[in-house]
Amino acid sequence: MIVSVSNPLVREVCELQTRKKVREETGLFVAEGTHLVGEAPRELLRRVYITEAYAGSPEGSALCARLRGLTETVSETVMAKMSDTRTPQGILAVIRQPGPAVFPGTGGLLVLERVQDPGNVGTLFRTAEAAGFEGILLDEGCADPLSPKTVRATMGAIFRLPFRVCPDLSAAVRSLSDAGYTVCAAHLAGRSLWETALPRRTAFLLGSEGSGLTEELTQLAGCRVRIPMQGSTESLNVSVAGALLMYEHLRRALTDAPEGGREH
Amino acid sequence: MIVSVSNPLVREVCELQTRKKVREETGLFVAEGTHLVGEAPRELLRRVYITEAYAGSPEGSALCARLRGLTETVSETVMAKMSDTRTPQGILAVIRQPGPAVFPGTGGLLVLERVQDPGNVGTLFRTAEAAGFEGILLDEGCADPLSPKTVRATMGAIFRLPFRVCPDLSAAVRSLSDAGYTVCAAHLAGRSLWETALPRRTAFLLGSEGSGLTEELTQLAGCRVRIPMQGSTESLNVSVAGALLMYEHLRRALTDAPEGGREH
Repeated sequence: MIVSVSNPLVREVCELQTRKKVREETGLFVAEGTHLVGEAPRELLRRVYITEAYAGSPEGSALCARLRGLTETVSETVMAKMSDTRTPQGILAVIRQPGPAVFPGTGGLLVLERVQDPGNVGTLFRTAEAAGFEGILLDEGCADPLSPKTVRATMGAIFRLPFRVCPDLSAAVRSLSDAGYTVCAAHLAGRSLWETALPRRTAFLLGSEGSGLTEELTQLAGCRVRIPMQGSTESLNVSVAGALLMYEHLRRALTDAPEGGREH
Repeated sequence: MIVSVSNPLVREVCELQTRKKVREETGLFVAEGTHLVGEAPRELLRRVYITEAYAGSPEGSALCARLRGLTETVSETVMAKMSDTRTPQGILAVIRQPGPAVFPGTGGLLVLERVQDPGNVGTLFRTAEAAGFEGILLDEGCADPLSPKTVRATMGAIFRLPFRVCPDLSAAVRSLSDAGYTVCAAHLAGRSLWETALPRRTAFLLGSEGSGLTEELTQLAGCRVRIPMQGSTESLNVSVAGALLMYEHLRRALTDAPEGGREH
């Protein structure tokens, strides 16, 4: 059992939790809790840290049995030190990062520019999987998809949804256009979502919480789409806006509704 | 200028920020920042606290001119003490609470049971206004709509969207049914959203982040609606789920799409 907070393994976990650079250099990241660790693909798991209390609990003993050979017991103090949460569940894993995804494919894609809140980025992963999207492209101004807060908000989608962090997001968007994607910028001055054509191969561009998409990226889009708003609302939360766009895309695919135009 | 953090006015603000009971007893709450204070109805504003730096800034001087007679200058230290944020904008207002809304009306309503995260509750307010909903009913297990984090997440919708905190949410839902509302529970075992009838007078019931609606409230609903999900996703974030339900309601109203049934 590891009881010292200065143990090198403990320090590795703390660095992975707090430093993006260390995650990049090592190709590792951390996920916490029964749900997330349970969802992580076995072949990516490097080491799983548990407390004695967790191993002895009903939910813990089942998961620990499945993870035999990978677990390392730590004291409550060590777990508290390693955890990113105020009330650690007693299980935490060091996980190898999936390789960067290769796009384009055959379905919907989400492109995020400077979406800075980890909760928003994580929620967009979760919703993108639910909406049947193929993957997410992000620029380096977005919250790191592998930071503890983002991973938590994905609720496990981080293990299943292909994604790529692009040093040059404009170039990536141009490649999508070249490959035949309909590139659609979320924009307050766009055409109503319900009157916009959304082919299977649509890529939605979403910008930062404060100021939306940059002019540069907007210019690369073949169309601008606006989510209709009633009342005096000036904008929607970015993870809500993304959900509405992606689910309208899914609705059209599943109900064979016409692509754009009023539906009578 | 107020420079002492033990000034009674400063203590009043701190209590309003941190204690729900004090907000209830006084009928007051606090909103921070240029956007929120600027959106607050003049007749509800009790007192506006500003720093000298804010009053001298371009955005600050315009708003302070509009609020003449209500402003009180405080030191940076006092503002930091009163603020709920790490980087205060330099303006903060004590505001009278709007009276409890009277329902039902003629349009869509959102009913929240034990939605505990202030960010989710606030985002649902923001989205409900944008989707043209008439109001929100909440039980006492929800995050307080007038807590600083919730108010911030509403982005001003708290001033415009009627709401009521119900000590007996079941009774309130029964009243809606009696008044002719279609009461629709968000439920994993429900009928697909896209195949569900959604009349103008629909009330959507949403439950807590962890465990959804209680059986008691679910039983009161005339229908159960499920948001289709692809992949291995088990659920959606509650503010995303609410947005998808409310916007489908709005889409039907605005596009005259048939209410439920496949659309060909």
